[in-house]
Amino acid sequence: MTFESDAPMPMDASRDTEDAGGARGAGDESADPGTVRPGGRTARVRAAVLQAAGDMLAEQGVHGLDLAEVARRADVGKTTVYRRWGTVAGLVTDLLTDMAEQSLPRTDTGSLEGDLLANAGLVRRTLSDPRQGPLFKAVIAAAVGDTRTAEALHRFYEIRVAEWAPCVQEAVARGEVPEGTDAAEVVRAVSAPLYYRLLTTDAPLDEAAARRAAGAAVAAARAGAFVRIP
Amino acid sequence: MTFESDAPMPMDASRDTEDAGGARGAGDESADPGTVRPGGRTARVRAAVLQAAGDMLAEQGVHGLDLAEVARRADVGKTTVYRRWGTVAGLVTDLLTDMAEQSLPRTDTGSLEGDLLANAGLVRRTLSDPRQGPLFKAVIAAAVGDTRTAEALHRFYEIRVAEWAPCVQEAVARGEVPEGTDAAEVVRAVSAPLYYRLLTTDAPLDEAAARRAAGAAVAAARAGAFVRIP
Repeated sequence: MTFESDAPMPMDASRDTEDAGGARGAGDESADPGTVRPGGRTARVRAAVLQAAGDMLAEQGVHGLDLAEVARRADVGKTTVYRRWGTVAGLVTDLLTDMAEQSLPRTDTGSLEGDLLANAGLVRRTLSDPRQGPLFKAVIAAAVGDTRTAEALHRFYEIRVAEWAPCVQEAVARGEVPEGTDAAEVVRAVSAPLYYRLLTTDAPLDEAAARRAAGAAVAAARAGAFVRIP
Repeated sequence: MTFESDAPMPMDASRDTEDAGGARGAGDESADPGTVRPGGRTARVRAAVLQAAGDMLAEQGVHGLDLAEVARRADVGKTTVYRRWGTVAGLVTDLLTDMAEQSLPRTDTGSLEGDLLANAGLVRRTLSDPRQGPLFKAVIAAAVGDTRTAEALHRFYEIRVAEWAPCVQEAVARGEVPEGTDAAEVVRAVSAPLYYRLLTTDAPLDEAAARRAAGAAVAAARAGAFVRIP
C-alpha cells in the first residue's frame, strides 16, 4: 500500500531486487534461482501477506490479527507466514517498514505555506481514508502495547519527518523563517493536531482542520517559535 | 487520581454525595442508610477499584486488565466489581469519567502566554509521569478498540478543553488575539504536539517541548491562524 491510499502495492523489479537482497529472501522456499526474477515470489508473498495484515488491522485492530487467518486471506501457506514473520508483532513491524518504504515523496511548491499545506492535505487524506485511518489507529494502539512495534512506528515517523524536513530547510534558506528553525519540529507541528483530533475527538478530519494545522505551523515558524534554544 | 499526579483520589463529602446521587449507588450493597454518610462505602469501593484499574492499565495496558484481579488488588468482592462495572470497557469508561471529574482547574496568569505555558506544563508533567504517562497511552489504545471507551475518552478531552478555553476567550477580550479565534482549537494546539511526541517518537517530553508547544500556539493564535472561517 502507499502512504496515501489503499492502492495495491507495486511489485516492480526494483522492489523485488531490494527485497531479495535482504535477509527475508529466506522465506522464498520454492523459487528456482535463474528461472524467475530474484525475489519475485518472495516479494509477491510479502505484498499479499502485508495487504491481508493491513486489511485485518483496519477491520479489527491488532487483537483481531491472527497469523493463520492472514495466511488464509493472502492465499499463502501458514508455514511460510509463521516462519517469515513469527508473531503478530513481527508482522506489524514489517508492515510499518513497508509503509515507510512505500510512502510518498514530499511535495515541493516553492513556498513553506504551499509545502506544509500539501503535507497537511496528505496526512488528512490518509487519516480520513476508510482503510488507512483505522489502520493508523490500530498500529498506534499496537505500539502502546509492544516495544518492538513502537520502535518500528517511531522509525516510520522519523522517515516521514525526514522526507518533509527539507521544505523547512529551504524556507530558512529563502529567508521565510528564521535561522535555527528546527525543521523536524515544524513538520511534526503539521501532523500533530490532525493525529490529536483523530485520537481524542469524534470531529471529522475536514479540509479546514488540515488548513488550520498548516497555517498554524507556518505562522508559528515565521514568528520563531521553532528556533532551537541552545 | 488527579489529572496531574498519581495522588490518591479524594473521598470528601461532596464527592460521596455526588456518587450516591447517581445510578451507581446500587453497588453499595451493605451500607445501612442513616448510619454512614450517604454513599460513603460506595465511593470508597469506587476509589479503590479505579485506583487498582489505573495501576493495572499503566503496568500492563488494557489487555492486562482483568476484573477479578482488579477486585483482588482493590480488596473488594468480585461480585461487586462484576455487578457494578460488568466489563473491562465499562471499567475503563468509568475510570475516564473519574479522571475528568478529578482533573485540575485551569490556571489564570493574566496573559495567554502564561496560561498556555501552565497548560503545556501540566500536560507535560502528566504524560511524563511514570504512572500517568503509561495510563494515558493505555486509555488511548483502549479507545481505538472500543467505541464506548472512545466516547468516554472524547468526553474527557472535551471537559479538559472546556476547562481551559476561557483563557483564550479572555485573551480575545484583552485584544491579545483576534476576534473569532476558536478557543478550543488553541487549547488543543497546546496538547497536540505533546501527545504526538509521546505516541510517535521516543524523544523525552522535556520542558523545551512544553515551552515550544505553548509558544507555537500563542504565536499562531496571535497571527490569526485559529480564527474560525465562516
